[in-house]
Amino acid sequence: MAGELTIVGMGLIGASFALAARQHFSRVSVLDPDDGHVAYALAGSIADTRVTEVPATAEAVLLACPSDHIAGWVVALADHPGTVFDTGSVKGAIIDEVEASLGAVPRNFVPSHPIAGLERSGPEAGSADLFLDRTVILTPVTATDPARTERVRSWWEATGAVVERMEPGLHDAIYARTSHLPHLIAFAYLLGIADADLAHTGGGFRDFSRIGGSDPDMWTAVFGRNRAALLDALDTFEMHLDEFRRALESDDLDRCRVLIADARTRRERLG
Amino acid sequence: MAGELTIVGMGLIGASFALAARQHFSRVSVLDPDDGHVAYALAGSIADTRVTEVPATAEAVLLACPSDHIAGWVVALADHPGTVFDTGSVKGAIIDEVEASLGAVPRNFVPSHPIAGLERSGPEAGSADLFLDRTVILTPVTATDPARTERVRSWWEATGAVVERMEPGLHDAIYARTSHLPHLIAFAYLLGIADADLAHTGGGFRDFSRIGGSDPDMWTAVFGRNRAALLDALDTFEMHLDEFRRALESDDLDRCRVLIADARTRRERLG
Repeated sequence: MAGELTIVGMGLIGASFALAARQHFSRVSVLDPDDGHVAYALAGSIADTRVTEVPATAEAVLLACPSDHIAGWVVALADHPGTVFDTGSVKGAIIDEVEASLGAVPRNFVPSHPIAGLERSGPEAGSADLFLDRTVILTPVTATDPARTERVRSWWEATGAVVERMEPGLHDAIYARTSHLPHLIAFAYLLGIADADLAHTGGGFRDFSRIGGSDPDMWTAVFGRNRAALLDALDTFEMHLDEFRRALESDDLDRCRVLIADARTRRERLG
Repeated sequence: MAGELTIVGMGLIGASFALAARQHFSRVSVLDPDDGHVAYALAGSIADTRVTEVPATAEAVLLACPSDHIAGWVVALADHPGTVFDTGSVKGAIIDEVEASLGAVPRNFVPSHPIAGLERSGPEAGSADLFLDRTVILTPVTATDPARTERVRSWWEATGAVVERMEPGLHDAIYARTSHLPHLIAFAYLLGIADADLAHTGGGFRDFSRIGGSDPDMWTAVFGRNRAALLDALDTFEMHLDEFRRALESDDLDRCRVLIADARTRRERLG
């Protein structure tokens, strides 16, 4: 069993991690400015105690706070003896910001990203099986202590997650394509939908546009932090959109069919 | 009770209509070149008999065949004593094609569009409750016999559907925005997704891209028939996509947040 776990940010992810992994830690403390979230965590035995600074005794420090606060915490905890890991959905920008501030990434920091549950929020939405069979990506850099990377891997595995390592830049490019771009598309699409259209939507619209209901603050931060990779993904998407436009404008339905069949094949590989 | 129903095209929609409405007809006959679909319908008591031409005695003729065959059937049945109605998801092009061929729309034809079940196919996927609480749009034109429009309304209502009347052009513009454009977007998006990306997808991707697995022949026909309205909807979408691009390129995150919040508000109105 590991020692004390401190969770910075008691939202959906922080609460779920505590619920899923708490038997692996001797004690769980929570640091969050939101009194309601902390009260919920203490009342529900998600955490044992509230702290206002990260205890020097913490063996594990999970940064599950909004992503624009993560780099600041990594810098502040650079000399902390525990192992610091985060849940931010963009890795390169956090690493760059820490490097810009300290000149190097602290060896106690293991960048990590659980792929789970981004539409809901708050500790009330937390659950012990949020990470079960889901992927968690670790993007350690050269400076990262390998022993700490293995510790963070074992903690995520304790939640039932499947852990994978990846370069931060590759991580950000892949998630720009598979997560950030679909959100941007859904938002842009919804801007063209009038109230009168909403009575004429089916299951396809509902599923397609569901991610368009996601939190503006969170997604503004994600878009801002992964700007370059997101713009690259947008370029590719607009190129393919233009192929459809040209096929339609020239009434080239054979070309249209080839494009649709190719798209369907890609979707079917997902199973 | 009405007399004989003939279903032209024994797929998902034809089978579901027969299952949902058959107690309102004295007899159900099926016309389809696919021996397997017909055998399934007869074995499952979805239809009573196979025909190779529409019987002169049919009181109701449902055209549930591929949409590029609908206008041809309407023309061929222009002098049929029964009431002809269809299931095509684009109305203007069918009406235009019939008018181009006959000079006018036959008074026995009631254009209709059930909003249901476009991702699955085949009579095996049919069910008696496919239309329950779903919308069916009727787009009668000036030439259409009002008594027949009311009859078609009652037949669709017998399936549990909610029936609404609309101008054909308005119908096509609305469904270009709420159904055809999302399919085009999902197809274009999937063209930019590599196999290696598929291991890094979450529930958001899965729902967002689900309609990208739809049938190429069907959607090529829909896109071709609703080209003008679809290109209009695509213009609007690309305008909003460009607003996001400019906000990102200029690092204007406040603008980005306003756009996302507006999109979310629209999605929330759907409930």
